[in-house]
Amino acid sequence: MSKKLYHGAAYYPELWNEEAIEEDIKYMIEAGINVVRMGEFAWSIIEKEEGKIDVTFFVDMIKKLSEHSIETVMCTPTPTPPIWLTHNHPERMYVNEDGKTMIHGSRQHICTNNHYFREKAAIITKEIAKAVGDHPSVIGWQLDNEFKCHVSECMCETCKTLWHEWLENRYESIDRLNEAWGTHIWSQYYHSFDQIPQPISTPFLHNSSLKTMYQLFSYEKIAEFADEQAEIIRKYSTAPITHNSTTFFHVDNERLYKNLDFASFDTYAEQSNFAAYLFNCDLWRNFKKNRDFWIMETSPSYSASLESHAAPHPNGYLKAEAVAAYALGGEAFCYWLWRQQRTGCEQPHGSVISAWGKPTVGFENVKEVEAARKEIESIILSSKPLQAEVAITYSDVAKAFMKTEPHRNLDYRSLVVEFYEKIVKAGYHRDLLPEGADLQGYKLLFTPFIHNVTQDYRNRAEDFVKGGGIWIVGPITGGRTEHHTIHTDAALGELDQLASVETLFTYPMDGTESTGEFMGKAAPLSLWSAIFEPKEAKAVGMISEGISKGKAFMTEHSVGKGKVVMLGSLPTEESGEQLLINCLNHYAEEANVVVKTNVTEGTIVVPRQGSNEVVWVIVNMDGNGGSVTIPHDAVNGITGEFIPKGKYEINSYEHKVVSFQKN
Amino acid sequence: MSKKLYHGAAYYPELWNEEAIEEDIKYMIEAGINVVRMGEFAWSIIEKEEGKIDVTFFVDMIKKLSEHSIETVMCTPTPTPPIWLTHNHPERMYVNEDGKTMIHGSRQHICTNNHYFREKAAIITKEIAKAVGDHPSVIGWQLDNEFKCHVSECMCETCKTLWHEWLENRYESIDRLNEAWGTHIWSQYYHSFDQIPQPISTPFLHNSSLKTMYQLFSYEKIAEFADEQAEIIRKYSTAPITHNSTTFFHVDNERLYKNLDFASFDTYAEQSNFAAYLFNCDLWRNFKKNRDFWIMETSPSYSASLESHAAPHPNGYLKAEAVAAYALGGEAFCYWLWRQQRTGCEQPHGSVISAWGKPTVGFENVKEVEAARKEIESIILSSKPLQAEVAITYSDVAKAFMKTEPHRNLDYRSLVVEFYEKIVKAGYHRDLLPEGADLQGYKLLFTPFIHNVTQDYRNRAEDFVKGGGIWIVGPITGGRTEHHTIHTDAALGELDQLASVETLFTYPMDGTESTGEFMGKAAPLSLWSAIFEPKEAKAVGMISEGISKGKAFMTEHSVGKGKVVMLGSLPTEESGEQLLINCLNHYAEEANVVVKTNVTEGTIVVPRQGSNEVVWVIVNMDGNGGSVTIPHDAVNGITGEFIPKGKYEINSYEHKVVSFQKN
Amino acid sequence: MSKKLYHGAAYYPELWNEEAIEEDIKYMIEAGINVVRMGEFAWSIIEKEEGKIDVTFFVDMIKKLSEHSIETVMCTPTPTPPIWLTHNHPERMYVNEDGKTMIHGSRQHICTNNHYFREKAAIITKEIAKAVGDHPSVIGWQLDNEFKCHVSECMCETCKTLWHEWLENRYESIDRLNEAWGTHIWSQYYHSFDQIPQPISTPFLHNSSLKTMYQLFSYEKIAEFADEQAEIIRKYSTAPITHNSTTFFHVDNERLYKNLDFASFDTYAEQSNFAAYLFNCDLWRNFKKNRDFWIMETSPSYSASLESHAAPHPNGYLKAEAVAAYALGGEAFCYWLWRQQRTGCEQPHGSVISAWGKPTVGFENVKEVEAARKEIESIILSSKPLQAEVAITYSDVAKAFMKTEPHRNLDYRSLVVEFYEKIVKAGYHRDLLPEGADLQGYKLLFTPFIHNVTQDYRNRAEDFVKGGGIWIVGPITGGRTEHHTIHTDAALGELDQLASVETLFTYPMDGTESTGEFMGKAAPLSLWSAIFEPKEAKAVGMISEGISKGKAFMTEHSVGKGKVVMLGSLPTEESGEQLLINCLNHYAEEANVVVKTNVTEGTIVVPRQGSNEVVWVIVNMDGNGGSVTIPHDAVNGITGEFIPKGKYEINSYEHKVVSFQKN
Repeated sequence: MSKKLYHGAAYYPELWNEEAIEEDIKYMIEAGINVVRMGEFAWSIIEKEEGKIDVTFFVDMIKKLSEHSIETVMCTPTPTPPIWLTHNHPERMYVNEDGKTMIHGSRQHICTNNHYFREKAAIITKEIAKAVGDHPSVIGWQLDNEFKCHVSECMCETCKTLWHEWLENRYESIDRLNEAWGTHIWSQYYHSFDQIPQPISTPFLHNSSLKTMYQLFSYEKIAEFADEQAEIIRKYSTAPITHNSTTFFHVDNERLYKNLDFASFDTYAEQSNFAAYLFNCDLWRNFKKNRDFWIMETSPSYSASLESHAAPHPNGYLKAEAVAAYALGGEAFCYWLWRQQRTGCEQPHGSVISAWGKPTVGFENVKEVEAARKEIESIILSSKPLQAEVAITYSDVAKAFMKTEPHRNLDYRSLVVEFYEKIVKAGYHRDLLPEGADLQGYKLLFTPFIHNVTQDYRNRAEDFVKGGGIWIVGPITGGRTEHHTIHTDAALGELDQLASVETLFTYPMDGTESTGEFMGKAAPLSLWSAIFEPKEAKAVGMISEGISKGKAFMTEHSVGKGKVVMLGSLPTEESGEQLLINCLNHYAEEANVVVKTNVTEGTIVVPRQGSNEVVWVIVNMDGNGGSVTIPHDAVNGITGEFIPKGKYEINSYEHKVVSFQKN
Repeated sequence: MSKKLYHGAAYYPELWNEEAIEEDIKYMIEAGINVVRMGEFAWSIIEKEEGKIDVTFFVDMIKKLSEHSIETVMCTPTPTPPIWLTHNHPERMYVNEDGKTMIHGSRQHICTNNHYFREKAAIITKEIAKAVGDHPSVIGWQLDNEFKCHVSECMCETCKTLWHEWLENRYESIDRLNEAWGTHIWSQYYHSFDQIPQPISTPFLHNSSLKTMYQLFSYEKIAEFADEQAEIIRKYSTAPITHNSTTFFHVDNERLYKNLDFASFDTYAEQSNFAAYLFNCDLWRNFKKNRDFWIMETSPSYSASLESHAAPHPNGYLKAEAVAAYALGGEAFCYWLWRQQRTGCEQPHGSVISAWGKPTVGFENVKEVEAARKEIESIILSSKPLQAEVAITYSDVAKAFMKTEPHRNLDYRSLVVEFYEKIVKAGYHRDLLPEGADLQGYKLLFTPFIHNVTQDYRNRAEDFVKGGGIWIVGPITGGRTEHHTIHTDAALGELDQLASVETLFTYPMDGTESTGEFMGKAAPLSLWSAIFEPKEAKAVGMISEGISKGKAFMTEHSVGKGKVVMLGSLPTEESGEQLLINCLNHYAEEANVVVKTNVTEGTIVVPRQGSNEVVWVIVNMDGNGGSVTIPHDAVNGITGEFIPKGKYEINSYEHKVVSFQKN
Repeated sequence: MSKKLYHGAAYYPELWNEEAIEEDIKYMIEAGINVVRMGEFAWSIIEKEEGKIDVTFFVDMIKKLSEHSIETVMCTPTPTPPIWLTHNHPERMYVNEDGKTMIHGSRQHICTNNHYFREKAAIITKEIAKAVGDHPSVIGWQLDNEFKCHVSECMCETCKTLWHEWLENRYESIDRLNEAWGTHIWSQYYHSFDQIPQPISTPFLHNSSLKTMYQLFSYEKIAEFADEQAEIIRKYSTAPITHNSTTFFHVDNERLYKNLDFASFDTYAEQSNFAAYLFNCDLWRNFKKNRDFWIMETSPSYSASLESHAAPHPNGYLKAEAVAAYALGGEAFCYWLWRQQRTGCEQPHGSVISAWGKPTVGFENVKEVEAARKEIESIILSSKPLQAEVAITYSDVAKAFMKTEPHRNLDYRSLVVEFYEKIVKAGYHRDLLPEGADLQGYKLLFTPFIHNVTQDYRNRAEDFVKGGGIWIVGPITGGRTEHHTIHTDAALGELDQLASVETLFTYPMDGTESTGEFMGKAAPLSLWSAIFEPKEAKAVGMISEGISKGKAFMTEHSVGKGKVVMLGSLPTEESGEQLLINCLNHYAEEANVVVKTNVTEGTIVVPRQGSNEVVWVIVNMDGNGGSVTIPHDAVNGITGEFIPKGKYEINSYEHKVVSFQKN
């Protein structure tokens, strides 16, 4: 458990003079900032000329800040290599999928697999770690910044060689690769690994296996870079290490965090998209099971660059975000950025202090956050998020599969967020779990939109079911092998057997005017769908209109103490949402899910377990206010006032803490 | 006349094991498949290593299939050159119009004009032809696959040299080219053929002549490749040769089929776009006058790739398609593909059998096709399509002109299909004719959207008119010379004289709020239009609103026994469609067109001539059912039942055969 | 003052034979054409082979035309270098922002900074000037044609070197550049000028300073090319020199015209966009203060290329355009083009005579222009446009800033035209002023959408205010330094002090549902906005809804005899337009603006000062007719008829001349 809740900001003192820095510290104190993140773009400051490394500025800065009780998360500055590393070295640069070689002037322009870059990155990381690693005020490390946010898979010659090695490592012999990828299709057949192209410039699409494997290769390589950096730091520092990521970037977050110490994310969702904000909290909480997550970057009001901007937050929303984050397992709530950039392409971006040294439109919101933080800190520190009973699996590998095979522009992230949103709306506390997460303690598991279900995942899900869980599989899930090919034994491979169905057909429902029914509710069906003939399973969702009229799109089958429920298609439109919520409620009840609240849409309830109480943190996220049914008499966790059971009102963006004492 | 109606599928046994092949043959028998197409992507199987060619697999396969009375269309495997031909040879690859060089991994990635490719293609074609050319079960050949479906005009260095040769051949001297193209415009002037660029990378548009000629050059070169391949095969096989094309690809189909033996096409139109399906049948029937066409590829339910999919067919539609095809002159109705691809980028594509060896959602539809095929086979084999009296000229050269000069994103194919649709709706039997087709026997000829009317075409049309035909010319037709320049004698060149009009102006009607009237019907006018001052002609369509109010947009002029009707503009919206149908009916009546039926929209009537009867094949294509007026008492061609004259009902996707005995 | 009003056309006799030329001259006489522009694309005619220059054709042509009293504007042919200059010389060609090198075949394909090109351009310019420079019929010169219309900033190696020189010249030391651009952001820091990239190929955006400076560099270089050409011509000719530009092209028109003799523009606005047409006239009149402008190109009916076309003009509109142009300070109204191109990519473009030598649909309109020209010529020649009292600053430098920083796809040109339109609608006579223009004589000055207010401009505006003017500043104006960075002293730099406000915040209003009120009128606010705390200023526009409710978006502050009015946000929608017009009327009244008319929307009144009278030229531009209130009894300037004061009707596209005699 944390010793404090952090309230922080990204800080670039290296770009400002002393006077500005003094001003900054004064305002930080006023705003209650107790941690800053520094250094991630400062390579040219620390190593202005190749080989001449000087970390003094940051050593001094950390000290100065610590004198005001402001702690530091220190970064490695590798996202922005200096000009001496990039100029006249096209072979070191990132090459995009159009074959275009990047140049100096922005960020992520270098290939992170380039050997010379790696050497230089290792040296500067070591020097920084040596210089500040044992400072007590350095409470954590961030590696680089937002890996793969502007770029995806590099197509440079270095990567080509590594790709061939990676493939050889994975497939051992070219014949196994040829067989796995079925390369005699279109005469793609390779005689040796070094003939295998990177996925660029073809008249039509590449082989799905090649496309997906190249993404997984890229996932692995960036994670290896993180591993390498972390190892260097650990030689000089015991402070925990993280990386600030999102679900938008081209990384496998589960793999990335495997060897790091804590998880953190950046989010710039507008208020209207608060579901995406909650999604991040519910997911990041689960990347490192016993460590609270950090929100490493969020805007005090709006994000922007020269070419775009978000809508500023309504007054009150920032505080709602912060309370929700702390309640959902966040240890820190940090802004990007403290002081508005004077120059560069992000000068319009929202900040806490303006470039001319004055509070911005977001400053009052930041002060509200600080007041709320103080108010709830002791409650949060003395409790922890209840594990949910309902879980949804999130997989960046599935994201890669869907990037290769998007059917009609499907986007994995959007699909999962929309699916998740229904569970929030229905009032369930929930966890978003990485593929490899332990399923112990859950009662209802959703596995939607995952083209390939691995052997390992299937085994663990089967155990979960045998132990009494209900596993709801689909839509889309299971139709591809690990090589991104079609199964040849059954449509969904071994899932068919486990669910005791024969998957008769898989085809796209869109455009077929098909309707599905579940427990009396009918809705249009959509997406690439699986149509089932139950064997020992029971058909529970039937197709009532369409070319497979009379067949099942949902089945359930008891396995051990639990059930496997196949959801072959996505009910859509308003009626589809209702059908899915009915399905959720039905199986939640059957699975005896109890961590659920009766709350109006737009307001959330976060249950936390204290030593002697259960605490509900209630937050209105949509600005419309709402109400929650309090099931037993309780007390207000902040004021101590009595709260009778029954309807409890919440105002616009308001938060409440309700404490249920153990009897 | 055919000895049978074919029902076939594209088959890739080289990608499957023996067990799967046995399964396939069992299902083929069940589904009534009597022909397969094989080998078009199998280069790496046949010539795994350069120079080591082994056709045994296909020799054996042809034999095995023949034992089950399944005949074979054998292909040359040139669309997918193997890695030994492409790896590390960028100079052999296709270069797109952005100057990007293609790599291995998909198809059509090589330049088909590359000399080394041509050499290797000739060798493998010869070896395949030698190996299977005299097998009695090999009933036909398909060259390559879908020429220019993913690519258009190649910009490689080989092509540049050939382009210069082609130009020299066409224009003889650089001065004639300079004069024809008017190259002193913008100081383009060339001193020698080798200075003439390919149409890439300019700040603004290239010269129209250069753009169009480069397309015609590319048309010619791909046809020459086909000619070369066909010649090789003919040394070893008497089986007829085709190529599977469409109107979407960057080929001149008329030229392409000139030296081939029969015509075939691929179609993946959704049911909602059935007019495009009929369009293909009405056009392909006329590429090789005395040979039935083949539908070489169509989906049993839906087409798809990793990145897109069509809507699956409604139940019943596939059979309607097949009956329509056989009735309209199709000898074969073949699926792409038999067994779902296990790997590669087309794994989601609809098939007859799934990758896991089971019938797909389309299988029942395929069996319906087979039942219908058997039902109608003897009727179809004992009759042939009546030549229509109404013809529309289709020209891939016109398509090239419009690609160069699309005004506001006009697309030749869409324009012609929409024009054609009106003739179908009005119940006329019709032929779509290649530019060079014989006009003998027609009564009403439409020539819309053809920027350049060649001397040859004009002469034949004039003869047609003199012999009593009515020729309806336009919209857009005639305004450009063969070099894609403007006429300097008259707006529409010699057409003005033939039609006895002065074309006063040509200008874009869109945005002018112009209205045209023909026989009391008014409609908005659209597209680049010609405004006429009749000389000896009669104004029959007047502009009643707009900047040329009071002038004619339609004229008619008697020439010999017939008439030239100028249609200077495209009436649009619902009223425009009615105006055009009125125009069609008016001139059809005047031309004494009788091959026409009174049929509800969405249902078609295909008249065929038997030895002793006229047969109508009636098919409902839109799924709504409909009715046809039977003009005389008749009998049902299948059941022999009496059909009294009068209204005859057709159910959803139903087909009927009505036989009118000669008295 | 002019000796005549010109009525002209672009003419390409070099592309036609003698017969066509004779025909042309006959029609020119009929149409009243008294000037042609020739030669701008004729390099390959004049210098067919390198070094062999022969201007005879044009010498003869000028003479022949002069015999029919048709004068000539002669051009330099540099936009279309011939093949001998470009073939096999990629290093001479324009490189676009994707790094793609242009080839021969269109225009502007060469880099105008290439040394060899410059050498050859100088030679041919000199030879042409020598050959025709002293011909009395050559009344003017046009340099090149539409600089930077198809291209923007070139990325070639020559430009890279010049860029480094330009930067060194501007910043003197690399440290000053690093400081000004704040290059330690993202470790961009440069050790020497030669390391600074051109703004191509980065994963995310370049530094704003680099992007904007590269545009200013490009602006300067093309202007230097113009200067160089002009100097050559002046050695051989006293005829005045111009260039035909627009606000669309990537040039700084103010800088471009600095060393030229008169200003001219090309316009192809459709009738529906007549505000843009007037905008050009009101702006071009002010590029060269004591010289009338020319409309060098406009279509007699419609513009077009192979790939697009405008809607043809309604009958009557062309004459309205011409009268408006002459009245607003135009000396010439010239068509592009006289005779339709026979070949090339502009063959569909509207012209006066068709390629087949006949009058086009526009010909009658052209004759109407000539009739009107004759009718008003003496009135126009004996008067000159009144200087307006209301001015709006137009800046191509501001356009560059907004291209770098468009927020949400903002386009400077569109924003300014829409702002301008409100002033037209409200009936004010107005001037659009280049940034450097003298402010003497104006009463009300608008400075919207100018990110950087230069020291010089601010000083002159302050003087204007002190002298009694009212300066309305914003929206967007002032938030950036000359280096395209954020101010560090105050949000709007020194403007804050001048306006006696503290600009509290700047943020994007879009998405915040903010409302502003001014004098009782409420409207939604939009765009990146400034929120003010008045110091000595008075808040006159308040935010009544939104996250800054209760703060000011408009303030006014008296300085000397005048006022500075800050307009921090853009009121939008219909109510916003009304709010802005209220604001305009309010301050116009306060500033004692009197040159204003009571005229219905769609009709304009152009006041001109004669020696003894004020003349109003009234033109209906929208085709709906309208009316004007005549304040005093007057006479019709053409017919001499008496016009009583009161409402005066104008028919569709009609023009009237009203003369107010001095008492």
